[in-house]
Amino acid sequence: MKKTKSRSKKNSRPIVAIVMGSDSDLPVMKAATEPLKLFGISYKLQVVSAHRTPKEMVTFAERAKSEGYQIIIAGAGGAAHLPGMIASLSSLPVIGVPVSVGTMKGLDALLSIVQMPKGVPVATVAVNNSYNAGLLAAKILGAFDSKIAERISKYKDQMRKQVLKKKI
Amino acid sequence: MKKTKSRSKKNSRPIVAIVMGSDSDLPVMKAATEPLKLFGISYKLQVVSAHRTPKEMVTFAERAKSEGYQIIIAGAGGAAHLPGMIASLSSLPVIGVPVSVGTMKGLDALLSIVQMPKGVPVATVAVNNSYNAGLLAAKILGAFDSKIAERISKYKDQMRKQVLKKKI
Amino acid sequence: MKKTKSRSKKNSRPIVAIVMGSDSDLPVMKAATEPLKLFGISYKLQVVSAHRTPKEMVTFAERAKSEGYQIIIAGAGGAAHLPGMIASLSSLPVIGVPVSVGTMKGLDALLSIVQMPKGVPVATVAVNNSYNAGLLAAKILGAFDSKIAERISKYKDQMRKQVLKKKI
Amino acid sequence: MKKTKSRSKKNSRPIVAIVMGSDSDLPVMKAATEPLKLFGISYKLQVVSAHRTPKEMVTFAERAKSEGYQIIIAGAGGAAHLPGMIASLSSLPVIGVPVSVGTMKGLDALLSIVQMPKGVPVATVAVNNSYNAGLLAAKILGAFDSKIAERISKYKDQMRKQVLKKKI
Amino acid sequence: MKKTKSRSKKNSRPIVAIVMGSDSDLPVMKAATEPLKLFGISYKLQVVSAHRTPKEMVTFAERAKSEGYQIIIAGAGGAAHLPGMIASLSSLPVIGVPVSVGTMKGLDALLSIVQMPKGVPVATVAVNNSYNAGLLAAKILGAFDSKIAERISKYKDQMRKQVLKKKI
Amino acid sequence: MKKTKSRSKKNSRPIVAIVMGSDSDLPVMKAATEPLKLFGISYKLQVVSAHRTPKEMVTFAERAKSEGYQIIIAGAGGAAHLPGMIASLSSLPVIGVPVSVGTMKGLDALLSIVQMPKGVPVATVAVNNSYNAGLLAAKILGAFDSKIAERISKYKDQMRKQVLKKKI
Amino acid sequence: MKKTKSRSKKNSRPIVAIVMGSDSDLPVMKAATEPLKLFGISYKLQVVSAHRTPKEMVTFAERAKSEGYQIIIAGAGGAAHLPGMIASLSSLPVIGVPVSVGTMKGLDALLSIVQMPKGVPVATVAVNNSYNAGLLAAKILGAFDSKIAERISKYKDQMRKQVLKKKI
Amino acid sequence: MKKTKSRSKKNSRPIVAIVMGSDSDLPVMKAATEPLKLFGISYKLQVVSAHRTPKEMVTFAERAKSEGYQIIIAGAGGAAHLPGMIASLSSLPVIGVPVSVGTMKGLDALLSIVQMPKGVPVATVAVNNSYNAGLLAAKILGAFDSKIAERISKYKDQMRKQVLKKKI
Repeated sequence: MKKTKSRSKKNSRPIVAIVMGSDSDLPVMKAATEPLKLFGISYKLQVVSAHRTPKEMVTFAERAKSEGYQIIIAGAGGAAHLPGMIASLSSLPVIGVPVSVGTMKGLDALLSIVQMPKGVPVATVAVNNSYNAGLLAAKILGAFDSKIAERISKYKDQMRKQVLKKKI
Repeated sequence: MKKTKSRSKKNSRPIVAIVMGSDSDLPVMKAATEPLKLFGISYKLQVVSAHRTPKEMVTFAERAKSEGYQIIIAGAGGAAHLPGMIASLSSLPVIGVPVSVGTMKGLDALLSIVQMPKGVPVATVAVNNSYNAGLLAAKILGAFDSKIAERISKYKDQMRKQVLKKKI
Repeated sequence: MKKTKSRSKKNSRPIVAIVMGSDSDLPVMKAATEPLKLFGISYKLQVVSAHRTPKEMVTFAERAKSEGYQIIIAGAGGAAHLPGMIASLSSLPVIGVPVSVGTMKGLDALLSIVQMPKGVPVATVAVNNSYNAGLLAAKILGAFDSKIAERISKYKDQMRKQVLKKKI
Repeated sequence: MKKTKSRSKKNSRPIVAIVMGSDSDLPVMKAATEPLKLFGISYKLQVVSAHRTPKEMVTFAERAKSEGYQIIIAGAGGAAHLPGMIASLSSLPVIGVPVSVGTMKGLDALLSIVQMPKGVPVATVAVNNSYNAGLLAAKILGAFDSKIAERISKYKDQMRKQVLKKKI
Repeated sequence: MKKTKSRSKKNSRPIVAIVMGSDSDLPVMKAATEPLKLFGISYKLQVVSAHRTPKEMVTFAERAKSEGYQIIIAGAGGAAHLPGMIASLSSLPVIGVPVSVGTMKGLDALLSIVQMPKGVPVATVAVNNSYNAGLLAAKILGAFDSKIAERISKYKDQMRKQVLKKKI
Repeated sequence: MKKTKSRSKKNSRPIVAIVMGSDSDLPVMKAATEPLKLFGISYKLQVVSAHRTPKEMVTFAERAKSEGYQIIIAGAGGAAHLPGMIASLSSLPVIGVPVSVGTMKGLDALLSIVQMPKGVPVATVAVNNSYNAGLLAAKILGAFDSKIAERISKYKDQMRKQVLKKKI
Repeated sequence: MKKTKSRSKKNSRPIVAIVMGSDSDLPVMKAATEPLKLFGISYKLQVVSAHRTPKEMVTFAERAKSEGYQIIIAGAGGAAHLPGMIASLSSLPVIGVPVSVGTMKGLDALLSIVQMPKGVPVATVAVNNSYNAGLLAAKILGAFDSKIAERISKYKDQMRKQVLKKKI
Repeated sequence: MKKTKSRSKKNSRPIVAIVMGSDSDLPVMKAATEPLKLFGISYKLQVVSAHRTPKEMVTFAERAKSEGYQIIIAGAGGAAHLPGMIASLSSLPVIGVPVSVGTMKGLDALLSIVQMPKGVPVATVAVNNSYNAGLLAAKILGAFDSKIAERISKYKDQMRKQVLKKKI
């Protein structure tokens, strides 16, 4: 499978936004880019804080669709408001990644992200599993793009083969 | 907004599958159809049990894409394996709804659905919140379909107006 | 102690704002008004939803100080973002009330409200205990207003006497 | 007690299957072999992933009985679906081992394995305690095989003596 | 499938013992008899309390094997010691059923039963799911008895058919 | 912003008391002083134990107001009684900091501090987040002191700018 | 066994104090008197609130020993400080009863009572199980009083016989 | 205060038994001896396993009173049955110490020890806090022995003075 380093791709406006509340979330969140690169999906990573830059967050969320994004991945820890706030401001689907911060080990972030009220869903993945957020974005795109769908099928096949050849 | 009773619509093959492990989950899961009807999205509801009809579940998941589905919503309670198993078998995006069953009040189902391993994401929503699963499906479809996107914008607007006119 | 029905008081601009994400939170949140009435503190109750009216919430939070509020009480359930978002937007102190909604019994709201990151505190009280939020507002005001402080002292005295005369 | 290195035993078809979702579970799961070796019970270890090789898992589970297995031990972490899926596919008794992976420390795996619905039991042991899974398999076999039963009696006796001679 | 009312069967010494800490556990525990009756497996129900009749419990556990039992099902609530204590005293396999009692909703019983130390496994099923304990006993017996195995296969088939004919 | 080393300031009687149950809490609690120093607010740190010096704690709490304190910050771990006991004894607002001690990782302290009964609120912040306790004290003071309010506005601005200039 | 209505007994100064934070705890706490009556142990029930009558609580705890009490039973809910505060003020042994109040179902009270720091133990019993608190007091007294010890032996015997005669 | 190395004391039969399920619990449990030594109370430490030496445990518990013990301290981890089983077998008061073992961090042991049913109390202390178990034993003995009571008073005084002289 040809890997495409998406960010440097000249002509592709990013279609997946990856945002996080703090650059301290980057070690966890950067894995979201792996499946996107693998499937040749353009993305952009940025820090947007619901708590420290609330107005910039509003602007980001309101403009995301018109700027060409189709999916937003948002990661946050603790009382993780970023994914839910973006979901309330944008009509785009938002994927939330609970980041484990401090002594609660991500349980706080998981509940803050997944327990959204009627009318404002966030597609939540496992604690710290930003890789799966990227892959979920790819599966969503693949439902509407046969090339990506094909790459995902190959990926599933490779995953299967890797397991099958394991000797223990 | 014109509501479309999707299931009875003549020419529309359903694009959202709503599956659940047992018909006892129906009282919780039927709310998933509300936003789909509201946005004129065709869907089909069915019982597919990971535990009692595992082979039919495999068949369902493997054929879902070729049968025209674009998104699968799966609800289950307890050791809720249905969403994750379908996600492992299909390249379509899967939205999981933890259903509260028994004394654990949905905590078991939430963790069984959201804590999926690398490579097999499930887009998890809040416990018992199947309405949001339907709405998330609509937001995903809306990212690729400007008519649905427009309806979602109107819906958000109506939701906002309803709050604004509340007197307490 | 003379009780002042604060909302109807002609010349008093409210100094405590009581906001909640939904009017379904009112049965829990209205108890916040009891201690305020008891201590003659003017307040205003309103619905402001972080998720359904995010922009109005931003406006509310940004103007709260200039409109004369000194303290904001915010109640919310589930992935309760309202208190934290207002705290991020206003320099006023925000008191958060976790409201028990659904199967998680307020644990989700408690963690979503209390586990705020460095830089954006929310003064959290017990699940569903909006009475204490009102009383905390009164204690804060009492630290700067000797009349209120005196009323609080009397209140503590009465509370003590009520316990002392209990026969069991 | 004579220890029998079961895997290398020429003429014994394995009667206990030990499967796990990933070879990363091996450090936890290999202790399941200890009591089996101790009691001279033949076994086979393999990686079978509910999520990455779902069809191979179905095949494995469906054939397990006819291949001569009498008991299946399955270990998995996170949203641990492997034990429950095998239990749904095979009429053999399945022993589940919750493996601690990531920040939830095995609570997710425990609930995903033990909270199975009516009709599909999994015999769950303690988090990470694969040794006990092997021993439980031996106790089950011992209920039908007097030689194994005798070895278990001796084992219990030795365990007792080890405690009795401890000086602290 | 011919159902056998096992307890009244003249010539069959019971092979499954179902014990519980208190007769207040009977409403939960009696469902364990359903699959046993269904598969024609003889059993005996009795109250044996680890806490109120500890010596009788020791006697019961020590004699269980010689009295012909092959499997013991033990249910208990709260600090549920009965399954673990019997497992420590008998070489027979013990299936534990956590019973929900009081405000902890079975979480206390689940952890007290499943978190057994190395050397003393208890095959734990879901909270209050004594039906599954009976079925697990049947699956264990079925691994060594082709008639029971055949009945279990039919049962699985019927379970499957019941799901397949559901209309929703 | 000019930082004021508050404790050494000649003419300022401390207005914020920072107390903790043990000097072993100091590594967590000292961060409460950072925002106070930053905003030029005078404070005093001391050890007051609800459990080991209960009578001194009573004296401290009863005199706190007359000694000129306007806000009390109290940190404690485990069965953290200090914040609640001071709140019951003083009419001043009390900010509670749950300190993570031992294996419960602060969950015990959080519940012991936040779940106060009607009549005795404690303004609880996140586990180990004493920095936010100091900042909350500053926000409370800022609601009544325009100089502090101005400094808080600048602080929020700086926080925002720091996020905006992050490159990832 | 002769039951002694202890409170009305002329010449017996109560030796067990049963205190609770609120008369709303009485329905739970009154069961503590049952075993005391059964074993002829004198006691006194009263409301003493750590939060609403802190100074009276201090006085009660400081005088308890000199007034002839040998054991104190204290029940409280939520952020249950009463048992721990009395334990810090008195050299008498304190038995704590977590009372289930509100949505946390006694988990908050359990942790607030049991997780006491080094130097200030509270003998904690199960949530809402004040009966056991009374019985524990009796067992403590029985270790130093052969008449009570004898009654406890009879009681254990009766408990055993009651179980043995159960037919299910 | 004169410290008495109790175990070596010639003429004192131990009055406090300290038992634990495994010698691996010794690093946690040995702190129980500190307050006993400090107050000159004779004790004996031994390994008694509910699970590996159940019959010896029964014998120990049944004889404890006649051997002169007045209080039993029992520590255990995981599905910690030792304290409750001894409490069911002896009329002596039993103090239980939950020991943190494995991934559950003592929550399993805490619930297994504290949630005892009606009729069989265990006086539970904090997770890993065996020091407090020893101190609780001393407070119990002190309620009946004025010398010990006096030493405890001095100890409380020293504890208080240590806090008072802390400079931070």
